[in-house]
Amino acid sequence: MIIDCHGHFTTAPPALGKWRERQIKAWEASRFRVLPNELFISDEEIIAAIEGGQLKLQRERGTDVTLFSPGAGKMAHHYGDARTSLHWSQVANDLIARVCGLFPDNFVGVCQLPQSPGDALESSVHASAAELERCVTELGFVGCLLNPDPSDGYWQAPPLTDRIYYPLYEKLVELDVPAMVHVAMSRNAAVQGTCAHYLNGDTAVFMQLCQSDLFTDFPALRLILPHGGGAVPYHWGRYRGVMLDQGRPPLEEALLHNVFFDTCVYHKRGLELLTDIVPAENILFASEMIGAVRSVDPETGRRFDDVKSILDSIEIGPQDRQAIYGGNALRVFPRLERVLHNRKQEEVVR
Amino acid sequence: MIIDCHGHFTTAPPALGKWRERQIKAWEASRFRVLPNELFISDEEIIAAIEGGQLKLQRERGTDVTLFSPGAGKMAHHYGDARTSLHWSQVANDLIARVCGLFPDNFVGVCQLPQSPGDALESSVHASAAELERCVTELGFVGCLLNPDPSDGYWQAPPLTDRIYYPLYEKLVELDVPAMVHVAMSRNAAVQGTCAHYLNGDTAVFMQLCQSDLFTDFPALRLILPHGGGAVPYHWGRYRGVMLDQGRPPLEEALLHNVFFDTCVYHKRGLELLTDIVPAENILFASEMIGAVRSVDPETGRRFDDVKSILDSIEIGPQDRQAIYGGNALRVFPRLERVLHNRKQEEVVR
Repeated sequence: MIIDCHGHFTTAPPALGKWRERQIKAWEASRFRVLPNELFISDEEIIAAIEGGQLKLQRERGTDVTLFSPGAGKMAHHYGDARTSLHWSQVANDLIARVCGLFPDNFVGVCQLPQSPGDALESSVHASAAELERCVTELGFVGCLLNPDPSDGYWQAPPLTDRIYYPLYEKLVELDVPAMVHVAMSRNAAVQGTCAHYLNGDTAVFMQLCQSDLFTDFPALRLILPHGGGAVPYHWGRYRGVMLDQGRPPLEEALLHNVFFDTCVYHKRGLELLTDIVPAENILFASEMIGAVRSVDPETGRRFDDVKSILDSIEIGPQDRQAIYGGNALRVFPRLERVLHNRKQEEVVR
Repeated sequence: MIIDCHGHFTTAPPALGKWRERQIKAWEASRFRVLPNELFISDEEIIAAIEGGQLKLQRERGTDVTLFSPGAGKMAHHYGDARTSLHWSQVANDLIARVCGLFPDNFVGVCQLPQSPGDALESSVHASAAELERCVTELGFVGCLLNPDPSDGYWQAPPLTDRIYYPLYEKLVELDVPAMVHVAMSRNAAVQGTCAHYLNGDTAVFMQLCQSDLFTDFPALRLILPHGGGAVPYHWGRYRGVMLDQGRPPLEEALLHNVFFDTCVYHKRGLELLTDIVPAENILFASEMIGAVRSVDPETGRRFDDVKSILDSIEIGPQDRQAIYGGNALRVFPRLERVLHNRKQEEVVR
């Protein structure tokens, strides 16, 4: 089974974006709340969006299951207040749940969290733990996206290793689900979103983890760094060196029991570096589909985000390949196997 | 001739740091100014700092000339006001000039600029052009460091492609010197300096350049991205793809006449990727010495920042190697040859 651990519903029906726009405008104009139950999207609209988008690419590329989350940039946690974020998360996550219900063989849910910046950060961590629990226990989700910069481009929050986040980590461990560390949009004109803020978020958080004892406090916590870990594997020597400079244990010991990298790197040499540097058991197949880059690479004739075709062309031992393509995901997302199994059972019953 | 285009005076005599501390404290406590002429450092102190540090490593590693700038993190442009930054730049640059005077065969100056964030940004760009001119025409410097985030970790300024920076670019072109784009310290607890903010700065600026026509306006402007270009070569496919998505010309055409990457990548696989992906004519040898990482790599028995020994172990054609080790630097820093020639002449006269 080939599991793509990083897919976003970036092709959601336009009604979703319009609801969000109304929500933000109503709040900004008059502190008025547009409520989750004011969104109407038909099953047909969802089916059209998925069948013409993610499912089509899944089939073309021969992957089986996508761990599917709301559009990451659109999480945009800086808008409104804590309830703005809560309502938006509920709306976005419920829509993902409907996708998973309509395509039970192909999509499993990963939720966004109702994070908020500034004074609302602490209470939003508690709200995030609650929304995570709802999504996992009621909607059958298997993980979440955790935004290390709810200010969306200005890094106003403490590092993810700060105790303020501990209530969420307790919930992650209790539910036995991982978090993919994923920034949202950038509203900073100096830092573009998908090709700067995204990668910088991954890099910044890896270094936060290098400097902390978070995994001593939470030995069972699992974090995934998307986009191939930002700059990290390319600068692996730098991180190895700085751990020595700081008198800290080696990366393998300090981080690699808990930190995983996805394969969203859109060229062969980059993926070769990733698979050479990072142990196979720490790599999860992903294509960030449909996401940051949508063009066809004229050098390969395939879309840049067709990571599977590139990985297929790289020499990787069969065991490692199996681990990267799915084995690791089943280990890092232990609820995934159960969810898929239950869905099969339901199908049999039906 | 092997030219290291990225060295910092991180081993400066303690009096420098004490002066800076007094400068900041006096300003913060009572808007009082400690003046540049209140710093006293003897030639002997400078000689000891260099001979025991950068010169020792230069000799051990068999490199010839280092393009030498003040400690980058310590530029710390957010402190005080525009005059604080101006005085500090004058002090730091004058000290570099003394190093170059004492070791004319080994060090050539690269200046820091008196940048300031916020309301002072625009006037500080003009002050930077003036300080650049002083350093180049009076002190014999060949380039400068340009900080894309004078707020030191919060990205409060417009992108470097904004017209606010154009007076500086006009001066760079007029003087025919390049700028190394290099952030200073991070005062943001979420974004560590050398292993997060540094790399993120390189990545963010590359994407700024991908989105702009800066080099149409300044076809002769040359910018160097240090630290191997942050995350960029590892994610080269992502940038190629996003240029296509945006309907922009290929990276080679849009950026590579003007943008150069240094080799401050501290492991073999990373340097192999860099030299495979980026054309040799766009790569400048550098080791960021003495800088971010100071430990010895137990795997090689050499310091992580001994980039030359790693590059020597990589298969690179002789012409490309010569270009990376020095040929490109002479082209990107055209004043360098003249400065070294003039110094030789002066030596002959003496």
